[in-house]
Amino acid sequence: MNGITKHTARRGRAARKSARIISATPDNPAAPGQTGGHYKPLTDDECDRIIDAALDLLSSLGMAEAPDILVEAASAKGAFVSDLGRLCFPRMMVGDIVSRACRSFVYYGRDSGHDFEVGGDKVYFGTGGAAVQTLDINTGLYRPSTLRDLYDFTRLQDTLTNISWFTRCCVATDISDLKDLDINTAYALLRGTTKPVGTSFTIADTVDPVVDLFDHALGGAGKFAERPFCKAHISPVISPMRYGEDAVEVTRACIRRKVPINSIIAAQSGATAPATPAGFLAQSTAETLAGLILVNVFSPGYPVIFSNWPLIIDLRSGAFSGGGGESSMLNAAAAQISNRLGLPSGVASSMADAKAVDAQMGAEKALSALACGLSGANMIYESAGMTASLLGASFEAFILDDEMLGHVHRTIRGIEVTDESIGLKTIREATLGEGHFLGCDDTIASMSRDYFYPDLADRDPPVTWEEKGAKNARDTAREKAREILARPDPGYLSNATDAWARDRFNIVLP
Amino acid sequence: MNGITKHTARRGRAARKSARIISATPDNPAAPGQTGGHYKPLTDDECDRIIDAALDLLSSLGMAEAPDILVEAASAKGAFVSDLGRLCFPRMMVGDIVSRACRSFVYYGRDSGHDFEVGGDKVYFGTGGAAVQTLDINTGLYRPSTLRDLYDFTRLQDTLTNISWFTRCCVATDISDLKDLDINTAYALLRGTTKPVGTSFTIADTVDPVVDLFDHALGGAGKFAERPFCKAHISPVISPMRYGEDAVEVTRACIRRKVPINSIIAAQSGATAPATPAGFLAQSTAETLAGLILVNVFSPGYPVIFSNWPLIIDLRSGAFSGGGGESSMLNAAAAQISNRLGLPSGVASSMADAKAVDAQMGAEKALSALACGLSGANMIYESAGMTASLLGASFEAFILDDEMLGHVHRTIRGIEVTDESIGLKTIREATLGEGHFLGCDDTIASMSRDYFYPDLADRDPPVTWEEKGAKNARDTAREKAREILARPDPGYLSNATDAWARDRFNIVLP
Repeated sequence: MNGITKHTARRGRAARKSARIISATPDNPAAPGQTGGHYKPLTDDECDRIIDAALDLLSSLGMAEAPDILVEAASAKGAFVSDLGRLCFPRMMVGDIVSRACRSFVYYGRDSGHDFEVGGDKVYFGTGGAAVQTLDINTGLYRPSTLRDLYDFTRLQDTLTNISWFTRCCVATDISDLKDLDINTAYALLRGTTKPVGTSFTIADTVDPVVDLFDHALGGAGKFAERPFCKAHISPVISPMRYGEDAVEVTRACIRRKVPINSIIAAQSGATAPATPAGFLAQSTAETLAGLILVNVFSPGYPVIFSNWPLIIDLRSGAFSGGGGESSMLNAAAAQISNRLGLPSGVASSMADAKAVDAQMGAEKALSALACGLSGANMIYESAGMTASLLGASFEAFILDDEMLGHVHRTIRGIEVTDESIGLKTIREATLGEGHFLGCDDTIASMSRDYFYPDLADRDPPVTWEEKGAKNARDTAREKAREILARPDPGYLSNATDAWARDRFNIVLP
Repeated sequence: MNGITKHTARRGRAARKSARIISATPDNPAAPGQTGGHYKPLTDDECDRIIDAALDLLSSLGMAEAPDILVEAASAKGAFVSDLGRLCFPRMMVGDIVSRACRSFVYYGRDSGHDFEVGGDKVYFGTGGAAVQTLDINTGLYRPSTLRDLYDFTRLQDTLTNISWFTRCCVATDISDLKDLDINTAYALLRGTTKPVGTSFTIADTVDPVVDLFDHALGGAGKFAERPFCKAHISPVISPMRYGEDAVEVTRACIRRKVPINSIIAAQSGATAPATPAGFLAQSTAETLAGLILVNVFSPGYPVIFSNWPLIIDLRSGAFSGGGGESSMLNAAAAQISNRLGLPSGVASSMADAKAVDAQMGAEKALSALACGLSGANMIYESAGMTASLLGASFEAFILDDEMLGHVHRTIRGIEVTDESIGLKTIREATLGEGHFLGCDDTIASMSRDYFYPDLADRDPPVTWEEKGAKNARDTAREKAREILARPDPGYLSNATDAWARDRFNIVLP
């Protein structure tokens, strides 16, 4: 155990102990927010070795291209500029930042029924971004994604239980002006959902107008800061080991307006980070810490999601691949490391390479969703709707992924072991009596408490399946998606705010 | 910790420690036989509580309908018949049986290149049985499965790397005579594969002729006993808590001919066992121990796979469902309990409810395969080819499942953490030099050592996928399956044995 984890390990043990308390609500045996951590790809010692290597990189190699304002603020906390002009962070400084960093916070929905706490070992799935193509629900082929798609995806996921927040899953490629893009994206989110949301600010200048819009939707100036329901996705680092100047500006603008920050490192194995899994994690952990430091030197304890998303490159082609076992394993390990540091952990799952809504998609998504969920990642991004190695988004995939995540939540929840749940008396009575357990009180109680019943999965016998038209999962999901998309606007945006926005901005959605 | 696990726990810890040694061969970064155990759905204490409850059931409730020959043999080892006429096993007797039971054994292929050791935390995937319908590769609809299907499935899986043994995945429903069925099943396995195989003996009388056939294939009388490449699937218990008389006879016949035994308990939640997950495991563990005792009272230390396969009933319909999170979780927990007892563990995964080769199938199979694999189950049955809640088998599914299992093996394998694999020097050099890791020595070495590259998965960009015909995974798998099935008979059965068999038995396959 190294200095930085010594004080967090005890907290980890306590969290793992509490992990055994079953958290399902009676009406949803597989509700979001289950307690993970039963899968540990690394030993504690291995985690600490990787963290130790990350601390070594931060203190001796440091970060290139830190803007002056960051050098100044960080130096006041103990950082120094090396002979090579790189901003280095001594171990003690990093330990201090981590120990004072935000360890959990409430991620608000506009509807408080969607609020949840980010931190500990609680596991939630949501979306990331940002595809540039949509798998057309009618043609089954890809086309550029539009603002209308984004609005439709937003409305669609709003009806899905296992997606706990919505970050724009696609880019409105039909909007070219950067300010218009950011504002119209925010507007589409407001119109389509009251869940917690996330977005990216392409330029720092759009933070103010977007938060003004959010303020108005909540009832007036300053209201967003009381219930910050939208977080910003920021990539503060260009791997390997270099700050991105624009991101520093967006970060500062977000801090001013109290926008929680999802600080994402998305290094790529064998390209911008080592191919070797352990080396990859060492560098990406260092970079994720560099992102954490960036926020915390300006605002100690500010809500930051520590998002270390290992991205795998298929080195045969040089293209990103999200569907392999390496992706499952490395994202789960990244979550384990972040949780060991006691920080709100973000990873990414279900970044399927499949183009079609097919068996490849199903398997690729489930593997990584389960690995990340069992590992106890707090926020699992990209977990629904994505196809084509994050290049595409699909309505049918959203529907199917949501149900798959229900099974994952059920698996994470685990098994309650008590005298009552073992129920030796019931076993004796059934064995010596009827010879079966059908209809007995324990069975009826267990049926609604312990089992997740999927809505869409085909569980019919083959003959019934054939009588019903021998549909595959894509057929079924397409029908449901069309039914949801045919519904009217959910009415989440008041006429007053709509008019206010149209007065001030170039709102493109009719 | 209770008596029965006290002496096995240390072995468990040693096994878990060795679990961190990476076992991939250089030419297959995701080879079968990875070391599992990184996912623990239960705490050690919870395992012990369940084992304790199982011991309670065996000693105080006991098993109904034990045949006289079993009562006699078991009583000599300390069992007694209760007032209710049930055969009860005192804790000390069960502990003694478990401590002397076979803890690992070599499962032979006819080709020694397919041999592997069953036990410890090594994980292998293979097939189970037995579907009564085949998903026709041409019509995409179900029809009764035939002997020809079984032979074709056998040849097909013989080419697939991640399926380590083959148990008949379907029943030759075109053969009605029970003896003909058992013999023709064995003949089809001999013709189609040299991997380790498994079969069921519908009646005890067919054990001798089938083993005679195996003897002949290996070169003469007694040869099978030296290299027992086929195990028998036996279900010794009718849940709840009752022995099946026929199974006792088959068991004794197998012991005489040295056929290793896969002793399967397949209790059904809410029907033949409690719906409550913990109660289910208590009863099914008791019953699996009853199966172990059955073999061991006749032949102490005989090779038995301790197969505790939790089957889930969808209590809305009363039908078996293999695709849910409950199935993943309970099979993983069953493996954990068996491994804690130090016994060769068998569970079942990938028993998808999907009828089509679709996204539902992919997700259902991957979830349970990963959960069972990470838990460290030694033998994971049903893991490839099955559809329709075990009612169906599919050629396309075999092809896709094999590749999915490659990703699972890769995930189980985990991350090697050493100074060399962290490679701080490489990170420094790449960061200060080229600014990327492409083409550096560590990347090239890692590419072949650390990454599993799927053959079939579509990793193209959307435009390329469309240019190639916008295929889905079933299309791709069907093409590959047809190519394999078009190959000639693999020639594994000599003309002499073929003629010998046709002289003596009603061999139906042309």
